[in-house]
Amino acid sequence: MMSHKWFMVHASEDPFAFPVGEGTLKLRLFVQGGRSLICTVLHADRYDSPGSELPTPMERIGSAGAYEIYEAILETAARRSRYLFHVAGEAGEFVWFGERGISGNRERAGSFQYAYIHHPEALKIPSWAPGSVAYQIYPSSYHQGHLQGISAKIPYLQELGVTTVYMTPIFASPSEHKYNTSDYYSVDPAFGDLHDLKELVNHAHAHGIKVILDAVFNHSGDTFFAFRDVLEKGEASAYKDWFFLRDYPVVQTPAPNYETFAKAEAHMPKLNLNHPETADYMIAVAKYWVREAGIDGWRLDVANEVNPQFWTRFRQELKASNPELLLIGEIMHASGPWLRGDQFDGGMNYLLRDDMLEFFAAQSTGPVQFMEQLLHHEALYNDQANTAMFQLIGSHDTLRFLTACKQGGRGWDHEHTAVRRMRLAVFFQMTYIGIPMIYYGDEVGMEGATDPHCRKPMIWEEQHQNTGLQQWYRKLIDLRKSYEVLQKGSFRPWFTDEHRNVLGYLRRNEQDKMGLILNNSPNPYHLELCRYRTDKNVLTDLLSGMTIRNTDRLIVEIEPFGCLMLW
Amino acid sequence: MMSHKWFMVHASEDPFAFPVGEGTLKLRLFVQGGRSLICTVLHADRYDSPGSELPTPMERIGSAGAYEIYEAILETAARRSRYLFHVAGEAGEFVWFGERGISGNRERAGSFQYAYIHHPEALKIPSWAPGSVAYQIYPSSYHQGHLQGISAKIPYLQELGVTTVYMTPIFASPSEHKYNTSDYYSVDPAFGDLHDLKELVNHAHAHGIKVILDAVFNHSGDTFFAFRDVLEKGEASAYKDWFFLRDYPVVQTPAPNYETFAKAEAHMPKLNLNHPETADYMIAVAKYWVREAGIDGWRLDVANEVNPQFWTRFRQELKASNPELLLIGEIMHASGPWLRGDQFDGGMNYLLRDDMLEFFAAQSTGPVQFMEQLLHHEALYNDQANTAMFQLIGSHDTLRFLTACKQGGRGWDHEHTAVRRMRLAVFFQMTYIGIPMIYYGDEVGMEGATDPHCRKPMIWEEQHQNTGLQQWYRKLIDLRKSYEVLQKGSFRPWFTDEHRNVLGYLRRNEQDKMGLILNNSPNPYHLELCRYRTDKNVLTDLLSGMTIRNTDRLIVEIEPFGCLMLW
Repeated sequence: MMSHKWFMVHASEDPFAFPVGEGTLKLRLFVQGGRSLICTVLHADRYDSPGSELPTPMERIGSAGAYEIYEAILETAARRSRYLFHVAGEAGEFVWFGERGISGNRERAGSFQYAYIHHPEALKIPSWAPGSVAYQIYPSSYHQGHLQGISAKIPYLQELGVTTVYMTPIFASPSEHKYNTSDYYSVDPAFGDLHDLKELVNHAHAHGIKVILDAVFNHSGDTFFAFRDVLEKGEASAYKDWFFLRDYPVVQTPAPNYETFAKAEAHMPKLNLNHPETADYMIAVAKYWVREAGIDGWRLDVANEVNPQFWTRFRQELKASNPELLLIGEIMHASGPWLRGDQFDGGMNYLLRDDMLEFFAAQSTGPVQFMEQLLHHEALYNDQANTAMFQLIGSHDTLRFLTACKQGGRGWDHEHTAVRRMRLAVFFQMTYIGIPMIYYGDEVGMEGATDPHCRKPMIWEEQHQNTGLQQWYRKLIDLRKSYEVLQKGSFRPWFTDEHRNVLGYLRRNEQDKMGLILNNSPNPYHLELCRYRTDKNVLTDLLSGMTIRNTDRLIVEIEPFGCLMLW
Repeated sequence: MMSHKWFMVHASEDPFAFPVGEGTLKLRLFVQGGRSLICTVLHADRYDSPGSELPTPMERIGSAGAYEIYEAILETAARRSRYLFHVAGEAGEFVWFGERGISGNRERAGSFQYAYIHHPEALKIPSWAPGSVAYQIYPSSYHQGHLQGISAKIPYLQELGVTTVYMTPIFASPSEHKYNTSDYYSVDPAFGDLHDLKELVNHAHAHGIKVILDAVFNHSGDTFFAFRDVLEKGEASAYKDWFFLRDYPVVQTPAPNYETFAKAEAHMPKLNLNHPETADYMIAVAKYWVREAGIDGWRLDVANEVNPQFWTRFRQELKASNPELLLIGEIMHASGPWLRGDQFDGGMNYLLRDDMLEFFAAQSTGPVQFMEQLLHHEALYNDQANTAMFQLIGSHDTLRFLTACKQGGRGWDHEHTAVRRMRLAVFFQMTYIGIPMIYYGDEVGMEGATDPHCRKPMIWEEQHQNTGLQQWYRKLIDLRKSYEVLQKGSFRPWFTDEHRNVLGYLRRNEQDKMGLILNNSPNPYHLELCRYRTDKNVLTDLLSGMTIRNTDRLIVEIEPFGCLMLW
């Protein structure tokens, strides 16, 4: 009979097993029921004889709420791996966990197999993704509402420290948001033309800034030539297989008789990308703008409602010409299936935004649960995807973070602490993994409820900007870009003080570690640090520049809603 | 804080969520810690407003050892689904489980999202797969050791009831097993030629039998023209990217300086299918034999060591010309990543073979654990993959099942009961889900340890055949083909008697259910059946033809190692 004392979850596939280098495999094990276990993975080449397995100790990453996460990195022989877990409790009791289950008997547990680490699997995200800081622009609300105006603001973005600009759709469309495309091959006249786009991209590149555009392939607009044709010709249209038409003639009122985006949005007919011609057309569109305008990547709208097989082909064809293109899927929920290396590099991380909203804005979670949710959500993806995620606190589809801070909080003067809680969220965003993404205007304190209020014109007049907040962004971006450990290091929980609403975390790589501490409360906090780095006599808080003697028993005061960046 | 009373596992992706029809979604939930829970899934269109969710009760399928499996089938509105689980205990205590975790608070738990059921996702396996019975031939050991001889035995296979023949490799190769191909475009002269293959396929088709061949694309033989070229020309060879060569000149002794199958098998150089030319070549090979010989599918050797992106393309190109081709991957371990609908239809189910070996042959597990392992392994895959799995009790790579029965058993006279235990395993195999696969000769009682002993010539002389066993196969195959519920019905545990080593299971569809009972012990068993079908006054045991009055309290005797098929 199986032992059920510790319930464990593992499968020899992403995100529980994935390559992190040529011949190097990362394993994740979820264990329910024990915090202080000793987990070891025994591994061998899958063709080695039984008994030849070597042990590698696993690291406890932390608690993700319902389970604990343990990880190990294996160097495989000849790219092939056979392994099983040995999990021991404090009293010496133990179980084995392999492909055939959890058992006290090693043979009965069997072994997991990661059959082969394929040569192209490691490091497929663009080399420039780690260390990037992204900035989202809603073009009609940015400088003068057109591409030339945005181009004129490239120096502003460079000064802010941004390295990547993502713009919502700019192609011909009758709406302001332009998510109902009428012509995939034209820049909307309100925004400019191909020449303006080229100028903008060139200008950005000259300032060290990449440009990413928004592709809407899940649906077109009803003014798209192919849909106009089916409206006109019905079943006789050469484009009838480009959409999901239920019957003929095709009608838009009183209700559309074809599939649409969302709930019967007649002006957004869903595109049938299973039809090879439609898929060919959209892939050609994506290649055209890369070739003609020199853009650096695509953000793909409503990516989770599009057939994954289209994305697989999309990636292959786009990366074949330029492996440095960044492909970001818009998926507002758990995005695992799209982030296994064959579709997108990263996604728009709304799960993380929810975590930050709860902790900093609503204050409906404390440090323990915030940390648990962070680990839970990081464990949904492989390391590469986590490195390429757009880590946002807001977008054109959400209420602005500062507004959420003003609405939330634990009974204090919301107005008074809102900016300070937002600063803390930005501190976290800029010191966490992935690609921090700034929604235009957040950096100057713009407010607004959901669409359309979150899409108001950018505030350019300095007297209406929160320049202190802006400087905070600049400083944190600068620090992020100055310390590689903030760009590529791993994230580890350090400590939580649930009662005082304070937490610490580490960013780590092989050489270094940085300690980050934040006080999410209106009270000052006295932190006792027990020589968390033994290799340094003096620590520096990179935010204040203050140096601290790294004694055995070090007490540091952190102001209300304050934070430390210890180096 | 989260409630941890019941730990649950679910992700909105295969094998936890997958389409089973146009707009129909199957959900699986694993719950650790409770057998008698009431699980409900609340679901809505993902664009419907919060609060519009409707409840669907989940069915407890059974225990998979460390966890319980609950399932539900949802009809989605517009192919899109948002859902969360409500899990309640006997005392009324409950939790919610959604994308954000397990919580007593519904909002905090969040919702899972299955964004869209794509149109081509449902029912992608060949229409002829359910209901098939497969038979594996090792050609050099079958009738006269060549294709003409095999062709002459098609009537034998038809009489046995087989509907699909799978042959290990028949292409030119210097070895007997022919897994080191020298020419992918030629039938090995020892087996015949293209004409013989066409004749065999035509003859089989005329008898209602499909033919599947074995493709070895993970590696070639060292006599393959491309490898001969790199051996001869080294770095100057036009084929140097077809393999994984470490340096030049390419040498085979004392150790190969290139990647190979298994441990330095110099005569089996690993093929680089990441190289487009190599992939093109092998896909053309696969298409050639479909086109020229009219074969019905491929079994793909060492499929889990080949880049999955090759298989994705392989499937697309092969199914484009003929969606009725059956594609079976040889993966001896958990095969989830290859069976999600974009690569293979099914796999060689060695995990199930291990379950059957343990229970019937070694008798090292009892009914409870056997049933748990069955459910655990079924839950690794979606319904389509489970329907297309090759369910084997042995192959050319394993010791024969009868030999395992003779070696195993619980201290009885192994010799004496071995055949009876094998009969019971065959009963199970023929009444379980998937495509039962018979390894040639098992049906006449052939014995043999692992390779080469399991590859001995087929026994054709009637005096050396176990004709009773052969009749048993015929009878069970005939019953399987006569009752649709055995081909397409779901599998459900019914009861287990751990002490007496007896178990019962059901095969079910919307109209019918069949009760299968097997006594895996040397003692007779008296089974009390409480009107398991209320719609019938008389039950029939389809094996014996015996009719049984379906009274309220029915007692049936099952002989040692006996079984019942109640209808």
